[in-house]
Amino acid sequence: MTRWCVRIGELADRTGVSAATIKYYLREGILPRGQATSRTRASYDEEHVRRLRLVRALREVGGLDVATIRDVVAAINDPGVPRHALFGLATRGLAAGDGRLGGVDPAALPDADQLIDDLGWRTSPDAPARRALAEVLLALRSLGRPTGIDALRRYADAASDLASWEVRAATVGRSRAEAVESVVIGTVLYEAVFNALRRLAHEHWSAPDAAQVGSRNP
Amino acid sequence: MTRWCVRIGELADRTGVSAATIKYYLREGILPRGQATSRTRASYDEEHVRRLRLVRALREVGGLDVATIRDVVAAINDPGVPRHALFGLATRGLAAGDGRLGGVDPAALPDADQLIDDLGWRTSPDAPARRALAEVLLALRSLGRPTGIDALRRYADAASDLASWEVRAATVGRSRAEAVESVVIGTVLYEAVFNALRRLAHEHWSAPDAAQVGSRNP
Repeated sequence: MTRWCVRIGELADRTGVSAATIKYYLREGILPRGQATSRTRASYDEEHVRRLRLVRALREVGGLDVATIRDVVAAINDPGVPRHALFGLATRGLAAGDGRLGGVDPAALPDADQLIDDLGWRTSPDAPARRALAEVLLALRSLGRPTGIDALRRYADAASDLASWEVRAATVGRSRAEAVESVVIGTVLYEAVFNALRRLAHEHWSAPDAAQVGSRNP
Repeated sequence: MTRWCVRIGELADRTGVSAATIKYYLREGILPRGQATSRTRASYDEEHVRRLRLVRALREVGGLDVATIRDVVAAINDPGVPRHALFGLATRGLAAGDGRLGGVDPAALPDADQLIDDLGWRTSPDAPARRALAEVLLALRSLGRPTGIDALRRYADAASDLASWEVRAATVGRSRAEAVESVVIGTVLYEAVFNALRRLAHEHWSAPDAAQVGSRNP
C-alpha cells in the first residue's frame, strides 16, 4: 500500500467529497483518521480514497443516511460480524434510505409471509424487504391483481437466480474485506443497475418492430 | 357495469382515499366526474373505484407526483397515444418520483450508451433510465468496478428476459385499456416486487447453510 502525505483538500480533489464533509466523516468515525505527521496534519492513503468513494456511492446512489453508513462501515471493520449478516445490514440501510416504507398495514403481512413460505425461503421476520413486499402485494390486491406464487413465480425465479449468483460472486474466493464490500456495493448499486436496464429493456421490447427481434425470447 | 349512487364519502371508504383528495382529483381531471343526480350530488361507479385505487398505488408505491399521474391518466384515456409510448411515459414518471436523479455528469453518458449499443437495444436518448444507468456506472467505475458488457451481461440478460415477458404479458390478448393499465402497474409495482424479492433472496442465499440448497442453482 502506497502511503502519501496529503492534506484533506487534496483528498477532496481525488474523491469529489468536500473537505467539510471529509472532516465530518472523520469526526463520526466513518473515515479512519490519517497518520499524524504533525500536530495539525495527517497523511491519508489509497485506503482513505477507496473508503470515501464507497461512502459517496452509498449516499448518492443508495440513498443511505449517515447513521446507516456508520453501521455499514463499522460492520466492514469488525471481523466479528459474520458475512451472512451483512446482506441484511445493507438491505436494512437501503430500506431506511428508501423513504417509502412508512407504516405497513399489518393485515398485509400474511400475504407476503405466505409467498415467502411457498418459495421455501428462510428470511428473518424483521427484514425490511418483507414489509416492502407486503406493501406492494397490498397495492396489487387492491387493483384486483393476483398475489400468489403462481402469478409471481416469474419474478421470484428471476430474483432467486440473480441473488444466488450474486452471493456466490461476492463471496467465493474473496477475502472477507472484499466480500463485505462486494455485498454492500452489490445490494446498493446493482439494484440500480438492474432497474435501469429493466426500464430500458421495456422500451426496447415495446417498440413497434420488437416482434421480429422478440423471437430471440420465445 | 353496475352503477350505484354514492356520495364522495362512501367512495372514500371504499378506496382509502380521503374525500378532500377525491375532490382534488376531480378538479384536476385525474378522476372523471360522476353522473350528476342533482345540483349538488353525483353518482360514482366501479370505474371510479378502480381508477382511484390505481392512482393511490401510483402515488404511494410508485412515488409519482400528481402532475405525472395526470399525464399517465390522460394517456390511458387517449386512444391516440400508441401502446409502446406508454412504457416510456410510466418510466419517466417513476424516474421523476425517484428523486435521486439530479444532474448526471455528462461525461458518464458514453459508458451507458456503449453498454446499450453493445446490447443492441433501441432506446431513446431522453430515456431517464439512460441517465440512471450512467449515474450508477459512474459510481461503479469510481469504486474500481468494471462497467462493460462482460461484467454486466448477467444483469442485462435477466432484465431483458423479464422485460420481454412483461411486455408480452401486458399486451397480448388484452384490450388497449387493459394493456395500458398493465403497463403502468407493471412498471411501477413489479419493480417493487422484484426488488423486495431480490433482497429477500439475498438473505436466503447468504444464510450459513445455503450451500447445500444452493446446488439447485449450480
